[in-house]
Amino acid sequence: MKAKLRTAVIGLGGRGMGLMHAVLRMKDVEVVAVCDLYEDRVNKALAAISKRAGSARGETDYCKLLDKRNVDAMLVTTAWSAHSEIAFAAMEAGIPVGCEVGGAYSVEECFRLVEVSERTGTPYMMLENCCYGEYELACLNMVRQGLFGTVVNVEGGYKHDLRDEICYGEKNRHYRLKEYMLRNADNYPTHEIGPIAKLLDINRGNRFVSLRSLASKSAGLKEFVSRGDDEYLNKLRDVEFKQGDVVHTLIECANGETVHIVLDTCLPRPYSRGFTVQGTKGMYTEEGNYFYLDSKAAHLKSVIFGKSYNNGKRFVKKYAHPIWKKIRFASALGGHGGMDYLVLRAFIEAVAGGEPMPIDVYDAATWMAITALSAESIEKGGARVEFPDFTSGKWKERKPVAFCGYKI
Amino acid sequence: MKAKLRTAVIGLGGRGMGLMHAVLRMKDVEVVAVCDLYEDRVNKALAAISKRAGSARGETDYCKLLDKRNVDAMLVTTAWSAHSEIAFAAMEAGIPVGCEVGGAYSVEECFRLVEVSERTGTPYMMLENCCYGEYELACLNMVRQGLFGTVVNVEGGYKHDLRDEICYGEKNRHYRLKEYMLRNADNYPTHEIGPIAKLLDINRGNRFVSLRSLASKSAGLKEFVSRGDDEYLNKLRDVEFKQGDVVHTLIECANGETVHIVLDTCLPRPYSRGFTVQGTKGMYTEEGNYFYLDSKAAHLKSVIFGKSYNNGKRFVKKYAHPIWKKIRFASALGGHGGMDYLVLRAFIEAVAGGEPMPIDVYDAATWMAITALSAESIEKGGARVEFPDFTSGKWKERKPVAFCGYKI
Repeated sequence: MKAKLRTAVIGLGGRGMGLMHAVLRMKDVEVVAVCDLYEDRVNKALAAISKRAGSARGETDYCKLLDKRNVDAMLVTTAWSAHSEIAFAAMEAGIPVGCEVGGAYSVEECFRLVEVSERTGTPYMMLENCCYGEYELACLNMVRQGLFGTVVNVEGGYKHDLRDEICYGEKNRHYRLKEYMLRNADNYPTHEIGPIAKLLDINRGNRFVSLRSLASKSAGLKEFVSRGDDEYLNKLRDVEFKQGDVVHTLIECANGETVHIVLDTCLPRPYSRGFTVQGTKGMYTEEGNYFYLDSKAAHLKSVIFGKSYNNGKRFVKKYAHPIWKKIRFASALGGHGGMDYLVLRAFIEAVAGGEPMPIDVYDAATWMAITALSAESIEKGGARVEFPDFTSGKWKERKPVAFCGYKI
Repeated sequence: MKAKLRTAVIGLGGRGMGLMHAVLRMKDVEVVAVCDLYEDRVNKALAAISKRAGSARGETDYCKLLDKRNVDAMLVTTAWSAHSEIAFAAMEAGIPVGCEVGGAYSVEECFRLVEVSERTGTPYMMLENCCYGEYELACLNMVRQGLFGTVVNVEGGYKHDLRDEICYGEKNRHYRLKEYMLRNADNYPTHEIGPIAKLLDINRGNRFVSLRSLASKSAGLKEFVSRGDDEYLNKLRDVEFKQGDVVHTLIECANGETVHIVLDTCLPRPYSRGFTVQGTKGMYTEEGNYFYLDSKAAHLKSVIFGKSYNNGKRFVKKYAHPIWKKIRFASALGGHGGMDYLVLRAFIEAVAGGEPMPIDVYDAATWMAITALSAESIEKGGARVEFPDFTSGKWKERKPVAFCGYKI
């Protein structure tokens, strides 16, 4: 019997605990160590592990776990601000890293991610679960089959009413609050830019060339705070949040596609990733959840009618990605409708098999850089900012892949 | 009995004929002259007028109609490229102008519109029908009532599959074809920016400060042409269309709101103006056609569910604008669900009553300038471009109005 892959989970907030539980349900993986700055979280995680008849080491300092004789892979699920520091250390120690999503604080941080990975040769993967979403996968599948024709415009967003989570950040020990007080950027671009970059073959024959971002005023959090009356909200009464409520970013691609992404987390709204793909033969948009494929008949009808709200449910079954079909029971095995399970399996199987990382360090550096670049553009009044090439020209030669992490 | 308002209709393509018929149904207005470069169109219009027991003068040269003793108002419904020239001439002749929508070819054109109007004192109105759309009016009504809270982000677009109209432009004598061959801009911004500017009080306490536009590659028309085989499409076989399929524009406002508009006319899709309003208390979006108003209960639900496709139908009745309720039979009286009737009545009643124009020359100059400014930004690789102030500072003093053209 093959030895189980030994993982350490660093960061035991809501996200870390969720991923830890997903790992605990896998037969070929074990959690040998957990770590968090807060001891109560460590104890809670250890208790959960022992309940499943396992045992693990608990630490409040991740540096004590940087020994590759004991750990085969590290899952980093801390606050955004600690991701890269831990990833650097793990890669230097030769321990493969699966890192949760987040934006970068500087372009240099992204370049260093690439440098450390190239120098050490240690695998690094960004655990962007939305690359494995049912709709994102179905659209990728349709793009690869040419059903949308030539892809021309892609959109997405992180449109999630987080006012409660942000404003009660101190109560919940959640790191978002500080981000909204101190920065103005698209602070969370990867949920939408990940799937977009994959279907546009970014860093594999295509690349992001430039970016410009525009931020709205900050009004949503202030009003939210003013409506309540408790110790946490009262403390925020006079805070001027630096983060604009809505941040738009337009990205130019080397192959001529336009990308529009939005951060929209401080206003009342239903959740949406606003995922939209438009090509010369068809389109999909998450707002309205409809597909629309070209045909003479459809065209004639479309002038007046044509929108078929929520037909996505039907299309997404018809054009389900092979990965999704293969692991259709995945939704029973993890959070967010199966995505979390798929992204974890992609990482674990690539580490175990010594395969290339499905979402590699060039992907991660490119996606995370949007946060730093959008901050720069906003600071300059929405000016055009050049997008660095983290592959140093290798994007021209790197080949597109059908998809990532599963041999299909 | 009060004398009827005598109008001349210049430009008798589909749009001109549509508006002419709307005017012919009004009891207090008559069409005393029609004009088009094509004689057959003039004859067709005259035949239609005589069928309704009237008679009118027909011309192929609008200059022959520039006598205010015979004409009380001029409706300009020609190709975009002739709008301003005719408007200048009419204003110089002292004839009030109702001008169809379109973009400007230069910022100078917009400044001249303002200059001629201010110097001659002749009324000018842009006939932007979408300002009078049912949803646009309902949202304006809700904004004025504070139901969305502080407005933070507004979006819109002209998302209309025009591949057929563009590519058969020669057959249909439609001017759009040339525009797509020679320019790269948001060539048709007013359908969405009109209602947006009205609800943001642009030029009345607020103004557009800067703009940046990004255009996708041009692929939709080429592929459309390649699929057909007839004399019109074959002629276009080797044409390189300059117009990008999708053009995004982000506009910064003096009061901190973000505006995102899109031109999307060369790809298969159902019609949409993508109208979206987001404030600190609620939102509406046309894609999906849903309203969402803040409440504790709604908030808790929204994390996972919350989207209620097509609930717009219900909301738009509940919050119908007084104008819409007052003239709820309007849809029986004109095209585009009543909008055309409302915009014409707004113009005609303002002219007859000597009232200020509901969509005045500052509005028109500002909205039309987007075409020229977007072309400049695209030419500069999506750079930030300053937005001129066509009011010369008067925007700070000009007062917001409840709405335009109807005393409510």
